[in-house]
Amino acid sequence: MALPRRLIGVDWGTSALRVFRYDGEGAVVDRRETAQGLIHIDGGAFEAALTEIVEGWREGPVALILCGMVGSHQGWIEAPYVPCPADADALAAALAPLSSRLGPAFVVPGVSLSLPDRADVMRGEETKVVGAAPPGWSGLVVSPGTHAKWVSVDQRSIADFRTFMTGELFAVLSEHSLLARTAAPGPDDPLAFEAGVRRGHEDRAITSLIFGARAEVLLGRMPGSAVRSYLSGLLVGAELAGGLEGTRPGTPILVAGSEALNPRYAAAFRILGMPRVTMVDGETAAARGLWRLAVLAGLTEGDP
Amino acid sequence: MALPRRLIGVDWGTSALRVFRYDGEGAVVDRRETAQGLIHIDGGAFEAALTEIVEGWREGPVALILCGMVGSHQGWIEAPYVPCPADADALAAALAPLSSRLGPAFVVPGVSLSLPDRADVMRGEETKVVGAAPPGWSGLVVSPGTHAKWVSVDQRSIADFRTFMTGELFAVLSEHSLLARTAAPGPDDPLAFEAGVRRGHEDRAITSLIFGARAEVLLGRMPGSAVRSYLSGLLVGAELAGGLEGTRPGTPILVAGSEALNPRYAAAFRILGMPRVTMVDGETAAARGLWRLAVLAGLTEGDP
Repeated sequence: MALPRRLIGVDWGTSALRVFRYDGEGAVVDRRETAQGLIHIDGGAFEAALTEIVEGWREGPVALILCGMVGSHQGWIEAPYVPCPADADALAAALAPLSSRLGPAFVVPGVSLSLPDRADVMRGEETKVVGAAPPGWSGLVVSPGTHAKWVSVDQRSIADFRTFMTGELFAVLSEHSLLARTAAPGPDDPLAFEAGVRRGHEDRAITSLIFGARAEVLLGRMPGSAVRSYLSGLLVGAELAGGLEGTRPGTPILVAGSEALNPRYAAAFRILGMPRVTMVDGETAAARGLWRLAVLAGLTEGDP
Repeated sequence: MALPRRLIGVDWGTSALRVFRYDGEGAVVDRRETAQGLIHIDGGAFEAALTEIVEGWREGPVALILCGMVGSHQGWIEAPYVPCPADADALAAALAPLSSRLGPAFVVPGVSLSLPDRADVMRGEETKVVGAAPPGWSGLVVSPGTHAKWVSVDQRSIADFRTFMTGELFAVLSEHSLLARTAAPGPDDPLAFEAGVRRGHEDRAITSLIFGARAEVLLGRMPGSAVRSYLSGLLVGAELAGGLEGTRPGTPILVAGSEALNPRYAAAFRILGMPRVTMVDGETAAARGLWRLAVLAGLTEGDP
């Protein structure tokens, strides 16, 4: 009698590679992480990088399921987007098979949105949503990061979503704009962050508020060491204003971010008088979503 | 009897140095321009650069008046800001004397705004406003550029203003964000610019709209060659939304930009159903403002 296949989950984004080893019930029994994100994989050496990171995890038969930018045009194979509305069944049915010596391997498709006045795409966050949203759940799942996603979930299905360039804007403005010359090194400044969140949320002219950080310093109203916290607050505040627009009060909100970003978002929601947001660990959500999609697709046995 | 002093006007910004030679009635009889903006002046060699560019203009006694970033902390001398409200008399009274072998020389101060929830600064645009606003005029003067200024003028006095980081955001996003990889070379695309203006004006979530440009291309809804025009439209549209906020319909609007930017702003106002905006040449306005401030300060004889 053949052993049942064990599952390896892979969350492979632009800047990091994370792998999860599951037991037969879907619990993560081991995890590994490297900085071998897509931008650090030369010449399509995906298989070599993956083989190396899962070393010792393939004593018996395994199946692999991958999500994230690894399924993009710049990735290992391109997994076509599933259009909204997209639930876990639709995603599991659209897994893209990958030719690999490691064993049966499949890539989770991204999700696309195409409205007359708005287009959007995600890759990786759909898996987090699948892992984070409980059965029958409706609400907003927020995935902070370089390209923060606000995902409207209806009965556990991705109904709509919107990307905010918060993290990338923070990085390019901090490094390449006049704010690079304005900001001085310093620890996080919670009061500057709070002021930024309030202004970025109330005043929608964010392209003006950003310049305002320079003026605050030039006029001696703010120390240079507060600029980065203030800018972070402005961008997160603007993101919350945009993401919450049209949302019914009382809508359940799950934030599925990293250890670094979750406290920042918790603070921002608290500053805006919305303390009842649920914080979940983004990596745990991704690992859980990969397991669930693998079970739905019959890659492994278990409870989705 | 001594000859009356002739005036030389200097508009010295971050990226360009422009000089104007006036006749006795304030008409510009010659102009010169180089790329010797502040970022290209090493080690404080301001006097050498200015001496070179005005060569042949100093046969008789001259006075010089300078405006722009040359009066900033990184400039030749720091001319303190005049707080709002600031009219031409207040600016003329606060000219900062410059020690120069070229002759009597003065730097126009910048203008600052310090409200409880907003701070802002300008250097150079105050001179454009002085030159562009006719006697007794009230309305909005828009100065497009790297840091676009929207100046609320009341009876020819600068009452309030707001800076939008439109040009700088366009540059850093085009060069350093994921849009650098999304955009393909191509000519200006007026339809993409128009779509950008409309969305940037209607939908205030500009940090989301910027990411949307990437999604439009990935989903085949927009060619990569349209991305730059679309991004320009988004940022100008967002600027117009912010700048026009709270403005009484029918407020006179003057746009005082360059030959390159004025048509873009004229198009944006037309797209938004505001065709009655007056376009004036920004350089002419600066030259006229320098003359006027010099006369008010008694640096030269003439009609302000």
